[in-house]
Amino acid sequence: MHGFSPLLAQLIAAFKCLPGVGQKSAQRMAFHLLERDRPGGQNLANALQQAIEAIGHCSQCRNLTETPICSLCEDPQRQSEQLCIVESPSDVIAIENTHAFKGHYFVLMGKLSPLDGIGPEELGIPLLAQRFDQGHITEIILATNSTVEGEATAHYLSEMAQKRNLSVTRLAHGIPVGGELEYIDSRTLSQALIGRKTLGE
Amino acid sequence: MHGFSPLLAQLIAAFKCLPGVGQKSAQRMAFHLLERDRPGGQNLANALQQAIEAIGHCSQCRNLTETPICSLCEDPQRQSEQLCIVESPSDVIAIENTHAFKGHYFVLMGKLSPLDGIGPEELGIPLLAQRFDQGHITEIILATNSTVEGEATAHYLSEMAQKRNLSVTRLAHGIPVGGELEYIDSRTLSQALIGRKTLGE
Repeated sequence: MHGFSPLLAQLIAAFKCLPGVGQKSAQRMAFHLLERDRPGGQNLANALQQAIEAIGHCSQCRNLTETPICSLCEDPQRQSEQLCIVESPSDVIAIENTHAFKGHYFVLMGKLSPLDGIGPEELGIPLLAQRFDQGHITEIILATNSTVEGEATAHYLSEMAQKRNLSVTRLAHGIPVGGELEYIDSRTLSQALIGRKTLGE
Repeated sequence: MHGFSPLLAQLIAAFKCLPGVGQKSAQRMAFHLLERDRPGGQNLANALQQAIEAIGHCSQCRNLTETPICSLCEDPQRQSEQLCIVESPSDVIAIENTHAFKGHYFVLMGKLSPLDGIGPEELGIPLLAQRFDQGHITEIILATNSTVEGEATAHYLSEMAQKRNLSVTRLAHGIPVGGELEYIDSRTLSQALIGRKTLGE
């Protein structure tokens, strides 16, 4: 059986670990890099190597970062009384782009999804509970996506915060039902932050 | 301006060199590898590095390979009188899977496309002309895709071969007009090989 050369077959197989990439896309990617963009391929190999070696989670907010504490958590100008809880690092960027929030973040790196084996442990909820218990935070802003799983996650977190008598708000205005946070334009997201409403009233 | 950490931003930018990958897909790929599949990411980095360092072109057929001459060109059991000319390494695999051809290949690694600056030089036509002139080949099978550019490339090559009094055939039966070779099932492709017809009659 003749096929691709061993190294080419290995490269095509390796591309298939990317989400949404099957055999044909993997072949197209491999040929494109080898034929038309070797510097880009070399750059990708280096960036991957460096990222995998160095990037871990911020010990305070769980965001992806190569420093022990991320630049947002270390910024002394931000208000540590407000904690905005989001699903992913892209959501942090989306909210930062509104310039409407100056508090701290907590990044779940996912959402509750029992069928996929993602429970409170996987989302760093024990670390979040510690931060709640330190007594420094007065308001929790739940900014998980407006999907079924995002809402379920928000519900879980709001019960947790209300047990500790923390004020809990949820992004409200302008988020289309069923939509995902990172795709919303900044003005809509800004309105959602301004119009946030208190839960459990 | 706060954004992704420098190494994360670098990784996302590097993914965008892949065909069909924009900002959102690049973010999804980066988060997926860092969060859920670091071994897969490490594997991809290694495979890319090895492929870029080692993979070049076969000095006879131009196919991608890490050896000076590819395994198909080196195989003494194959008939060197027949030369099948294809656009890409995937097309070689597609034809090999039919088990209907036992000759040699020549891989153009593209098709004539003057608007993109791809002319005879870029497709290795001078090397192909040398092989024609060596007098060992008696039949040229043109197996470029049945697209406008593939047909134009086939026309160019057939004129070149006919000038040298070589017999030229073109894959015929079963290839859907406008379709691309690598997506056709083996039986259809096998029929196309069996029913190939002589040009210039």
